[in-house]
Amino acid sequence: MREVAVIGVGIQKWGELWDKSIRDIFVESASLAIADAGVDHIDSMYVGCMSGGLFAAQEHLASMMADYLGVIPAAAARVESACASGGLAMRLGWMEVASGLSDIVLVGGVEKMTDVTGEEATFALATAADTEYEGYQGITFPGLYAMMARAHMEKYGTTLKQLSLVAVKNHANGALNPDAQYPFPVTLETVMNSTLVAEPLRLMHCSPITDGAAAVILAPADIAKKKFKKHPMVVVTGSGHATDTIALHSRADITTIKSTELAAKKAYQMAGVKPEDIDFAEVHDCFTIAEIMVTEALGFFKRGQGGPAVEKGVTALNGRKPINTSGGLKSKGHPVGATGVAQVIELSRQLWGEAGKRQLKKARRGLAQNMGGSGGSSLVHILERR
Amino acid sequence: MREVAVIGVGIQKWGELWDKSIRDIFVESASLAIADAGVDHIDSMYVGCMSGGLFAAQEHLASMMADYLGVIPAAAARVESACASGGLAMRLGWMEVASGLSDIVLVGGVEKMTDVTGEEATFALATAADTEYEGYQGITFPGLYAMMARAHMEKYGTTLKQLSLVAVKNHANGALNPDAQYPFPVTLETVMNSTLVAEPLRLMHCSPITDGAAAVILAPADIAKKKFKKHPMVVVTGSGHATDTIALHSRADITTIKSTELAAKKAYQMAGVKPEDIDFAEVHDCFTIAEIMVTEALGFFKRGQGGPAVEKGVTALNGRKPINTSGGLKSKGHPVGATGVAQVIELSRQLWGEAGKRQLKKARRGLAQNMGGSGGSSLVHILERR
Repeated sequence: MREVAVIGVGIQKWGELWDKSIRDIFVESASLAIADAGVDHIDSMYVGCMSGGLFAAQEHLASMMADYLGVIPAAAARVESACASGGLAMRLGWMEVASGLSDIVLVGGVEKMTDVTGEEATFALATAADTEYEGYQGITFPGLYAMMARAHMEKYGTTLKQLSLVAVKNHANGALNPDAQYPFPVTLETVMNSTLVAEPLRLMHCSPITDGAAAVILAPADIAKKKFKKHPMVVVTGSGHATDTIALHSRADITTIKSTELAAKKAYQMAGVKPEDIDFAEVHDCFTIAEIMVTEALGFFKRGQGGPAVEKGVTALNGRKPINTSGGLKSKGHPVGATGVAQVIELSRQLWGEAGKRQLKKARRGLAQNMGGSGGSSLVHILERR
Repeated sequence: MREVAVIGVGIQKWGELWDKSIRDIFVESASLAIADAGVDHIDSMYVGCMSGGLFAAQEHLASMMADYLGVIPAAAARVESACASGGLAMRLGWMEVASGLSDIVLVGGVEKMTDVTGEEATFALATAADTEYEGYQGITFPGLYAMMARAHMEKYGTTLKQLSLVAVKNHANGALNPDAQYPFPVTLETVMNSTLVAEPLRLMHCSPITDGAAAVILAPADIAKKKFKKHPMVVVTGSGHATDTIALHSRADITTIKSTELAAKKAYQMAGVKPEDIDFAEVHDCFTIAEIMVTEALGFFKRGQGGPAVEKGVTALNGRKPINTSGGLKSKGHPVGATGVAQVIELSRQLWGEAGKRQLKKARRGLAQNMGGSGGSSLVHILERR
């Protein structure tokens, strides 16, 4: 299979975008990506979106977005793996270019979540869990992650302060990201005293409801080298995809995300690297406990050491293993279908040396981890600067 | 890219399956496909589904289905292109095996449409059109296809009798298919006197609302040749995917399906064949006018000759170019996410010589055409017996 490069990215400020439709926000970001890459056409595109139906009463998004982006009759596919829909779009776009079937592929993600009521949004998100055995019994995602947090605290001694420091760190990073939904710092006191949502999780341990889109353009590395030179060469060296039970109650251990462990293993193997070879990562902090669990599942820290790592500043912007330099889902926002694609954008910008005020000094190899539901699916990608 | 074979299929009787859930019907068909192929694992799977959210309040279907099928942690992706979701799953599964990334891939499709009211189902289906500019103005799919029918009748002289004879033919074929939702013949009189839905379309010109699933197992041809010999060798020789405007009013000509023309062109080119080289086809007769339009778009008949071809018996089971030997969407049923996969099953069975009472004498090369919405997306696959 061919080596695949990221040759352009497009994203706009995320938030409550009430004056724009789902088609507007996708087309704007996708157009920026096309302009950034400098391509004059695309061969195919992928649209990651969790629930066009429940959030926007619009399915058939691939046809709609190809139409309004002006790229018909290009092949276009909408893909879904709940909150990992963007990561799934990335994997399939990579596969299409790597296979030799297409040269120029747009990978995008979108979710328009604030045009429905809070109750409707909570219901729509709950369809990422097992509707019959979880949703219809009354549990929603804050409750599921609260159980994981409580179990992790019980088993490993993870503290509420550590859960809170994840939010403090991510908001500190997000304050340097002009595209973030909430680009401001928060204090530990603010996080710990915020409204209780599901014991032990408080409001500031939860990522927000967001409207947003993101897009990247992929091309074969050999073509990119000759024709698309705006950015330094950044290539995908690893891709991993794994599933786990959709319902939390079916798992032997709810203090880790097994699908992330397995997807990471595949990605590391493909890239020929180990967790310690990763300079920085964007991970799926839908709740702050998730960041702690997945940094352990990715092998960055031993089981139970994710919390202490945050407390010691290891995952801070100037730490040994910076995590969520973009601000993460917590500060940047979490339009579920777009999140996985935005992670790839942050990796690309850091690797290109174009991350502005949050630019890392050492950024040669980055990892993006995106997951669906309570970890029923995970996608891991490794990008490297050549 | 590698040559890809269909090594097993699974499908159960379609209909109003009120005693089964979306997970049940998918897992049953997928299990049958796995048993039929004789594989002991799968590397990856695709689930075509249009609206798990609006029909069944269940997204994240890839994780759910992998879980209940017992194949976690295998990679699993849900894909959507409205009523062409099954065809899209087929294309991506084919791509994954052809690329060399995976060997054994399950391609499935599912839709559970009868657990909601008729009004809710009509609304859910309408999200395959442009919600803002079509759905919210009050038009639904029978209306969109009625306009295409009227335009085709006006331009080419296509008659109501011809539209009706498509239904008569497809029910005659479906009567020989035990998996069909409505496996009985209908008379021309019954069709022409059925309830008016949207002038000129009557009830019996429209495909039904259906619960159903379908699955096939793909493997590289060279591995299939050595290890999976239950069925004769059938390989995918062409795959085409194209889009058009999502809204009908944006098109220059509504008497043809341009996305099908373009997808077919790509598939013919890949397979190195012409329309006249195709022995038989499964096409997307969501409304009987659609069968007439797409048999023209596929190049089987000149523009305006699709209607006369039906009238002359050319597309009958014993005709020169049999169309929808399975009964088509009209008689077999149309669980939208499963339809594209079921088309591949019918092709495989005909090419294997395992189509029972509806077995064709000449079946060396078949074509499947699946489309989304009013033709905003089309997928075309060509399968051949080696």
